[in-house]
Amino acid sequence: MKPTSLLLLFLAIAVPASLTLAGDMPNKIHPLRPQVGSGGHHIPGVSCQSWRLAVETDNIKDWDVVPMVCENYVGNYMLGHQYRKDCNAAGWAAYDYAKGLTLKKDGKDVWIFDIDETALSNLPYYARPDNAFGAKEYNETTFKEWELEGKAPAVPAILYLYKRLLKLGFKIVFISGKSESLRSITVYNMKKVGYHTWEKLILKQTSESGTTAMVYKSKKRKELEEAGYRILGNMGDQWSDLMGSHVGNRTFKVPNPMFYIA
Amino acid sequence: MKPTSLLLLFLAIAVPASLTLAGDMPNKIHPLRPQVGSGGHHIPGVSCQSWRLAVETDNIKDWDVVPMVCENYVGNYMLGHQYRKDCNAAGWAAYDYAKGLTLKKDGKDVWIFDIDETALSNLPYYARPDNAFGAKEYNETTFKEWELEGKAPAVPAILYLYKRLLKLGFKIVFISGKSESLRSITVYNMKKVGYHTWEKLILKQTSESGTTAMVYKSKKRKELEEAGYRILGNMGDQWSDLMGSHVGNRTFKVPNPMFYIA
Repeated sequence: MKPTSLLLLFLAIAVPASLTLAGDMPNKIHPLRPQVGSGGHHIPGVSCQSWRLAVETDNIKDWDVVPMVCENYVGNYMLGHQYRKDCNAAGWAAYDYAKGLTLKKDGKDVWIFDIDETALSNLPYYARPDNAFGAKEYNETTFKEWELEGKAPAVPAILYLYKRLLKLGFKIVFISGKSESLRSITVYNMKKVGYHTWEKLILKQTSESGTTAMVYKSKKRKELEEAGYRILGNMGDQWSDLMGSHVGNRTFKVPNPMFYIA
Repeated sequence: MKPTSLLLLFLAIAVPASLTLAGDMPNKIHPLRPQVGSGGHHIPGVSCQSWRLAVETDNIKDWDVVPMVCENYVGNYMLGHQYRKDCNAAGWAAYDYAKGLTLKKDGKDVWIFDIDETALSNLPYYARPDNAFGAKEYNETTFKEWELEGKAPAVPAILYLYKRLLKLGFKIVFISGKSESLRSITVYNMKKVGYHTWEKLILKQTSESGTTAMVYKSKKRKELEEAGYRILGNMGDQWSDLMGSHVGNRTFKVPNPMFYIA
């Protein structure tokens, strides 16, 4: 069997599975559309499955859109079982580590979460035809409109982990690249879907808008450590959440094949 | 469709594909055996596909054997098309980065490769029933016997990358956790499969046997930088090849779901 036949057969299975699942999504999303000539570029000889692994392992960096040929593949992945199962595995690994720690319980045992595509999912936005699961160029205007609706569902595996970490006695710190101007709608959205409490919810100030996520988040983590917090775990969907300095004792990568942030 | 049905269907496709491929392997390997009660532990709710992604993203660390239920999954992956395609994607990403660099060509532009499961493949060894693609405990004695045969094939994608990096003008440094006592057979094996030249081939001294791979490799990279080398790329199948200090300008993770080295 040729690799292409294998991929096609795999996709043939994945499509009905994901369409069935669409009804389960917390927010109603568009059904999969036929592949259109939008977005990125084909990488010769690299299948979409391999492209996704290369993205998840940070081998492919600084990409701007999902390769056009992978739009349906990424859509099927994100709407199907596998994305949820991969998030569950990340959550399981994190909890398995966390429950083995002996916390000091002095209010300084911290677990850091990113927000977008980690605590909250923007999948209802990315599934829209104008975004095509990341195969179309990022649109700052429509994304901000979506953010202002405050309708992002939780990533179920991460919400579940969050609740269990709270029970273990962790203090939760959210560090997000979202603008400080979105604080009230972000707080509203987070609480609505089940993130009821946190030690800090750190958003990006206007003065920090020129810095990369990696530099900005490293600075925020440094400030936390200088304030006496111990970063025991750190979880995000971008490697820029998990690299740089002061990354914490352990990092956990949540899958995200839809966009890249440096 | 339930996740289990999806996984079973996927495996049903993957099995014939991998059996067909077995004949293409550089060294003759054993056909896939039925799943037996050997090795690791099941992780509740985590499928083998998700386990592999969690391993590749370093979410699951310090594991000692492949979970028993994933022995066939890992075997099919390693013998089938997907492992080769994933290696190709890692090689492609590395070359795409490397060709964009302006080298000084003063003999100090270095690319680092690990050896086992990066430059050379021990798949013929791991495919043996007594190793079960990593689902059985590591056996130091039989692995050393296999190393002393000097029969490891190259990982094709990495050999191809190596040749192209040489043409671009890189100096190649291999850093391996193999023992210095294996130098002559390693050199023989490397040259036989096509790695004809290198700046340095660094093996582990007896005095270094107590250190972890991450500490040992960080020390070797530090020594390279102190000697004036610039580490522009660094490629390995273990995160311990790519983390620690002096990791280089870019790192590239080669897939390996068969074993973990700290």
